[in-house]
Amino acid sequence: MKGFKALTPIAEAQRVIINAAAHKPAAGRVPTPQSVGLYAAEDVVAPVDVPPFDRAAFDGYAVRSADTLGASRTNPITLKKTGKVVTGGEYQGALGPGEAVEIATGAPLPRGADAVVPYEEAADRGDYIEVYRPVPQYYYVSRRGEDVTAGEVVLKRGRRIKPWDVGVLASLGIREVSVYRVRAALISTGSELVELEEAPPPPGRIINSTRHVITALLRDMGVEVSYMGIVPDDEEKIRNAVSKALSSHDIVITTGGVSVGEPDYVVKAVARLKPEVLIHGIAARPGRPNSAAVVNGKPVVMLSGFPVASIVGFEVFVKPIILHMVGAREEPAPVVKATLTRRVTTPINVRSFVRVRVVRRDGRLYAEPLAVTGSGVLSTLTRGNGLLIIPENREGYDEGEEVEVLLLGPVEG
Amino acid sequence: MKGFKALTPIAEAQRVIINAAAHKPAAGRVPTPQSVGLYAAEDVVAPVDVPPFDRAAFDGYAVRSADTLGASRTNPITLKKTGKVVTGGEYQGALGPGEAVEIATGAPLPRGADAVVPYEEAADRGDYIEVYRPVPQYYYVSRRGEDVTAGEVVLKRGRRIKPWDVGVLASLGIREVSVYRVRAALISTGSELVELEEAPPPPGRIINSTRHVITALLRDMGVEVSYMGIVPDDEEKIRNAVSKALSSHDIVITTGGVSVGEPDYVVKAVARLKPEVLIHGIAARPGRPNSAAVVNGKPVVMLSGFPVASIVGFEVFVKPIILHMVGAREEPAPVVKATLTRRVTTPINVRSFVRVRVVRRDGRLYAEPLAVTGSGVLSTLTRGNGLLIIPENREGYDEGEEVEVLLLGPVEG
Repeated sequence: MKGFKALTPIAEAQRVIINAAAHKPAAGRVPTPQSVGLYAAEDVVAPVDVPPFDRAAFDGYAVRSADTLGASRTNPITLKKTGKVVTGGEYQGALGPGEAVEIATGAPLPRGADAVVPYEEAADRGDYIEVYRPVPQYYYVSRRGEDVTAGEVVLKRGRRIKPWDVGVLASLGIREVSVYRVRAALISTGSELVELEEAPPPPGRIINSTRHVITALLRDMGVEVSYMGIVPDDEEKIRNAVSKALSSHDIVITTGGVSVGEPDYVVKAVARLKPEVLIHGIAARPGRPNSAAVVNGKPVVMLSGFPVASIVGFEVFVKPIILHMVGAREEPAPVVKATLTRRVTTPINVRSFVRVRVVRRDGRLYAEPLAVTGSGVLSTLTRGNGLLIIPENREGYDEGEEVEVLLLGPVEG
Repeated sequence: MKGFKALTPIAEAQRVIINAAAHKPAAGRVPTPQSVGLYAAEDVVAPVDVPPFDRAAFDGYAVRSADTLGASRTNPITLKKTGKVVTGGEYQGALGPGEAVEIATGAPLPRGADAVVPYEEAADRGDYIEVYRPVPQYYYVSRRGEDVTAGEVVLKRGRRIKPWDVGVLASLGIREVSVYRVRAALISTGSELVELEEAPPPPGRIINSTRHVITALLRDMGVEVSYMGIVPDDEEKIRNAVSKALSSHDIVITTGGVSVGEPDYVVKAVARLKPEVLIHGIAARPGRPNSAAVVNGKPVVMLSGFPVASIVGFEVFVKPIILHMVGAREEPAPVVKATLTRRVTTPINVRSFVRVRVVRRDGRLYAEPLAVTGSGVLSTLTRGNGLLIIPENREGYDEGEEVEVLLLGPVEG
C-alpha cells in the first residue's frame, strides 16, 4: 500500500503550519499611489487635520450665524456683500457684523464667519443679499479636522490598501507608505513539463500551466514572485533548489512531484531539510496531495502539479500563510445562495471543492455541478463560475437543496 | 436659483450615456501570462485536445481491462510486468494480452492498454502483478480531449481573464491572447489643487487626492491611464484639454469643476464640444454633481472633485461604460445581510450611498452607519468596511431593520 496513510484535516493542517511559520517578511516604503493592493506594515498616523481649515460645504454666502436670527421669507435680513472667495483662494481680512462674502464650495471660511447660507436660501441684490431663514452655527461648513484629526490612526497595520485609502493618505500629504514586501519563490518540478514558450510539447510531455496559475494568484495578493524554473524529478536537485530558494525568500512554493504514490520526490526532499513540521497530504478533494512544511520558521508549500488541485492548495495553505505573515484578514468573497440542480455525493471527513455553474432562471439562482473529481480538469473553472465547498461532516447535497456558492465570475442568464 | 434643475435618475443617466457611446476600444495581443485581469477581445478556440493523449489518472498499472474480468481477492488475476512508464516518458511498443506496465499519474497510456489498476488494488510480485478486482474500460484514465476538445471555445469575448483561464490557455499552448486595451485620459480641474509631490499645500489649497483614487479604480479594471495634469478653472482651457484628450483615448474623465453653483466650468466646456447627449447631475447622494456626455461616440465623464462623490460617479458612469465597451458583465461583489444599528433617513427619488461599519457580535452581523452626507469625507471609507445603497423608492431604513451591505473590506470583531 503506497497511498497516504492519514490525511490531515484542512483546519488542523493550517493551524500546524501557521503556528510554526514564525518568519516575517521585510517592509519597504513605496510611493503612496503605488501602494494599492499591498499590506500596510505599520499604523499610519495623520500628520495634519483634514480639512486643514474650516471650509464651505456648499456654494453661497459666508455669514455670521448670529446676524441671521429672525430672518424669514416675509421679513428677510439684509447683509452687505463685501467680497468673494473662490475655491483655492483666501479672503483677506475678516468678516464684520452685517457682512456677507460670496463663497465657493471648498473655499476657506473668512475669519469672523461661522456659517454658509446656500444660494437657494438667499437672494442677490447687487451690493447686498437678502437671507430668508436663520442658520445655525457651522451651517454648511466642513470643520477643520472633521474628516481626520491630526494624530489619529488612518491606516492600520495589516490592512490591504484600497483606492480610497490612497485618497486619504494623499489628502494628508503622505507621499510614501510602509508595506510588506512578500517574496515568494516558485519551483516547478516534473520531468514531463515544458514551458509555454516551447509549445507545442513533444509526445508525452505537457506544458507547465500550473506555474502561470499560481503566479497570477500570488501577484493578485501583491506578492513578488521569483520563478526558479523546472527542476527534474530528482530528490537531490529538488532539495538543493528548495534550500537555495529559502535563503532569499519569505515562502517557497513547489508544484508537482507530490502524487499519492511514487515518485514523491518533493516531500522526501523537503523532509531532508529537517523541517520543524511537515504535513503530508490533506483531507481535500481535489487537492489531496497538497503538502506543507516549515523550515527554520519559513513555510514551504508543496502544491499538486495539477492546476485545479494546486488552486485548492493555494487556498488552503499559501493564502492563509501570507495573510498571517502580514497580519491581515481575508478580504470578503462574493457568496450566493442557489438551488442545486443535481445531487452531489462526496466522501465524509474530506472537504470537497465542487465546481459549479450558477445561472439565473425566472429570478432564481441555480447551481449546476460540473465535476466532482478530476484535479486536472481546468476547463470546469472556465465553463463554470462558482465553487461549492462541501464540509467534512457532509456526504454531499441533494438535488433541490439550497447551497452557498462562492462566485468566481458573473452569474449567467 | 443656481442649483440643478432636474437631476436625472441613475438608471436613466446610465442608459442614455451607454446608448450613445458607440466607440469601441482597440484590441491588442499580450503574452498569455500577462493577460490576467484584462478583457478578452475575441473568442478563443482550443487548437488541440486536453489532455493531448489518454493518460493515467492514478499511480498503478496500465492493463487491458478485459484481462481483469473475474478477478477477486481470493482468486486474483496474474499479469506479466513488461515495463514502466514515468510521467513525461512514453512506453515503446504495445501492451499485449496478459501484460501490465507500471505507470505514473499523468503518463501516457501504452498502446493496447485501456485502464489503470491503482497500486492499492493490486500486489507487486516482482516479475508479475496480482490484480484483485475487475476494472472497467478507462478506469482511472484521463481520456484525450476529456478536459477540452479541439475547436471548442475556451474563452469568450468580454470575459475578464482569471488566473485559471491563463492555466487553460497555457495548457493549450496559446502564447498570446487578444485583449481590449482601454485607454483613459484623466484631467484634474481646480485652481485650488496642488499635487501630492508638492505637499504640504499652501494656505487655502488642497492636495489632488481624487486623482489617485480614480487612477487606482481604473487600473483595477486593467485600464491604461494617461494623467493630463491639473487644468485651472477656465472654460477655454478645459475645453481644449478635453478635446485633445478625446482624440487619442477611449474615455475622458475629469474631476472637479462640477459643483452645484458657479463655477461649473467643466460642464459648460464640454457642452461647447457639441455632445450627442449630456447628463448634468444625477439623483445620487453623495455624488449629485457627477455628469457625463458623449462626444463623437466617446464618453466624457465629469466627476465631482470630492473623493467620495467621485467614487459614486465612477460606479455610476465609468465602470458601466467600460464594461459595455468591452462587452463584459460586472464581476460579482461580496454582499452580506446585517442588522442596522441606527435609523438612516434619506431623501426620496435619490439613490443614497451610506458608508457603514459591519461588525460581528455573538455570531450576528450589524451595520453601523457612519455618515449619510459629506462627499469629501474619505475617512468614513477607511473607518468603515461597507456601503449601504438605499434605492430611490425608500426614505431610509429603521433601526433594527435587516439590510444588504456591499462589503469593501473584512468584517470586524
